[in-house]
Amino acid sequence: MGLRGGIDLGGTKIQAVVVDAEHAVLASARLPTPESGGPPAVVAQMAAAVREAAAGARVDSRDLDGVGVGAPGTFDNGNLANAPNLSGWRDPYPLAATLGEALGCEVRLGNDVQVATDAEFQLGAAREFDSVLGVFWGTGVGGGLVLGGKPWLGRGSAGEIGHVVVRRDGARCPCGRRGCMEAYAGRAAMEARARKLQHDGEHTTLFEIMETRGRERLTSGVWARALRAEDAMAVKLMARAVAALGAGVASAQNLLDVEAVIIGGGLGIRLGDPYVARIAAAMQPHLFLDGKPPAVRLAALGDLGGAVGAALLVAD
Amino acid sequence: MGLRGGIDLGGTKIQAVVVDAEHAVLASARLPTPESGGPPAVVAQMAAAVREAAAGARVDSRDLDGVGVGAPGTFDNGNLANAPNLSGWRDPYPLAATLGEALGCEVRLGNDVQVATDAEFQLGAAREFDSVLGVFWGTGVGGGLVLGGKPWLGRGSAGEIGHVVVRRDGARCPCGRRGCMEAYAGRAAMEARARKLQHDGEHTTLFEIMETRGRERLTSGVWARALRAEDAMAVKLMARAVAALGAGVASAQNLLDVEAVIIGGGLGIRLGDPYVARIAAAMQPHLFLDGKPPAVRLAALGDLGGAVGAALLVAD
Repeated sequence: MGLRGGIDLGGTKIQAVVVDAEHAVLASARLPTPESGGPPAVVAQMAAAVREAAAGARVDSRDLDGVGVGAPGTFDNGNLANAPNLSGWRDPYPLAATLGEALGCEVRLGNDVQVATDAEFQLGAAREFDSVLGVFWGTGVGGGLVLGGKPWLGRGSAGEIGHVVVRRDGARCPCGRRGCMEAYAGRAAMEARARKLQHDGEHTTLFEIMETRGRERLTSGVWARALRAEDAMAVKLMARAVAALGAGVASAQNLLDVEAVIIGGGLGIRLGDPYVARIAAAMQPHLFLDGKPPAVRLAALGDLGGAVGAALLVAD
Repeated sequence: MGLRGGIDLGGTKIQAVVVDAEHAVLASARLPTPESGGPPAVVAQMAAAVREAAAGARVDSRDLDGVGVGAPGTFDNGNLANAPNLSGWRDPYPLAATLGEALGCEVRLGNDVQVATDAEFQLGAAREFDSVLGVFWGTGVGGGLVLGGKPWLGRGSAGEIGHVVVRRDGARCPCGRRGCMEAYAGRAAMEARARKLQHDGEHTTLFEIMETRGRERLTSGVWARALRAEDAMAVKLMARAVAALGAGVASAQNLLDVEAVIIGGGLGIRLGDPYVARIAAAMQPHLFLDGKPPAVRLAALGDLGGAVGAALLVAD
């Protein structure tokens, strides 16, 4: 039949799709990521999400050519380990084998932001280019690379653009280090900074908006609303984030000289083209080849890009 | 005969070698780079250097299989342009054709730090690795990349690790931008900083050593002597340089996850293994995979690495 499954395994949600041979999404399903129960509970929920998407496409999971999984963490031989945002997932767990058995088809694993970059390269905003840096701007800031038409994985962990240093001895990053780009631009770091500033007496509507919207965190939507209302703290923290992204992405560009930079992730997609333009402008003063900047574009596949990219892991 | 020539074209010297089929250096010659006369004068001196090396190897330049040139600047179809440290060399000049005619053999051009990286990869300190970042620490800080066994050139200008930002809005770089790694670690920037500190009343023996040694600039040898004498300013500026190198090279590593980092260049080679160890230590707090650092090694081919690497341009 030529149908494939893809899963984007995130810390808060599991997004599954079923795609056809032309990579068109036939059906999708989204379930919350279990917050307890460890890897077995997460794998059971992943299987449920694929079954729901498969049902939507009127097939059984056993009829899929395979299922690809894009996940955070480190991979080795079908095992996933060190997945920072997944409950109890430090030690290697045989994700590919366990999920494959539950679904009755082959399962392959890949890094979540790398498969999303591949998806933009093969199917999305970077189709016409041969070398691409994907920047996924969300809770953290992840990166993926396609160089000379092929994913560049390094020893397995390339693409950590969030941990490019933009200010030596600078702000504390959620990773524990100092001065990383993510310490200024990651949504988790931005929220921590906003809480501290509010605690120190600075006014903001960010947390009111959060509560009104029934959220427990400063989601991308909360940031977008606060920016639209010109909340001074939101405007200030976002300017700081954009400046850090400009310096960090320009540093990567000076090193790699790629044709295109694709901006995705929860914040990137929510804030859209105006912010892509702001990031490109913030890169400009740091670009060594300032007369020949790369194309800087918004990810075209949106929220489903990660799952569609994961499905590419089992294409051909 | 299988002999090849290689030229490392620098701002102060032209280093030429003749190598055999096994890349062994049969003879070498070093001439000062003309400070006036523009590209024709520089090309004439390059030809003289190759002829001198060829004479040392008892051949005529016409008998060489070809001559490779590693140069700064931008390349297009045998032309060299925008060579920042060469007198009057802004517009494209037909270097390959002119030098080829003077020598009676084929000439090919490559980026100076990229060919030096290739040399370390094929023949030097990085032979056992498949992915390498070369860091050439001298007047400026240049970089070269080998990824998956192949040079990565990007759109032609990859490797500008000296212009990775380590401090947003930081020190002014010789390139005109702010906060680049080279603004802290490049010898030209370090000398400018030392002059300013001395002008502001801070004591140093750096310039006395320079004059005693008959130099007009703070050469690598001058720095080495001042450090050995524990000159406070030299120690302080070198610590600042090493810290910047640590942050910048770790940023590159977080992005690329290469197997090995090779440290070369005038300062790198002069200061040697103790400073390679210091740079590796300065990288450590910024490495995302801090439990799996890359190998960090001193360039093995020394001063002739650039010329030997250039000769690789005409191998097979």
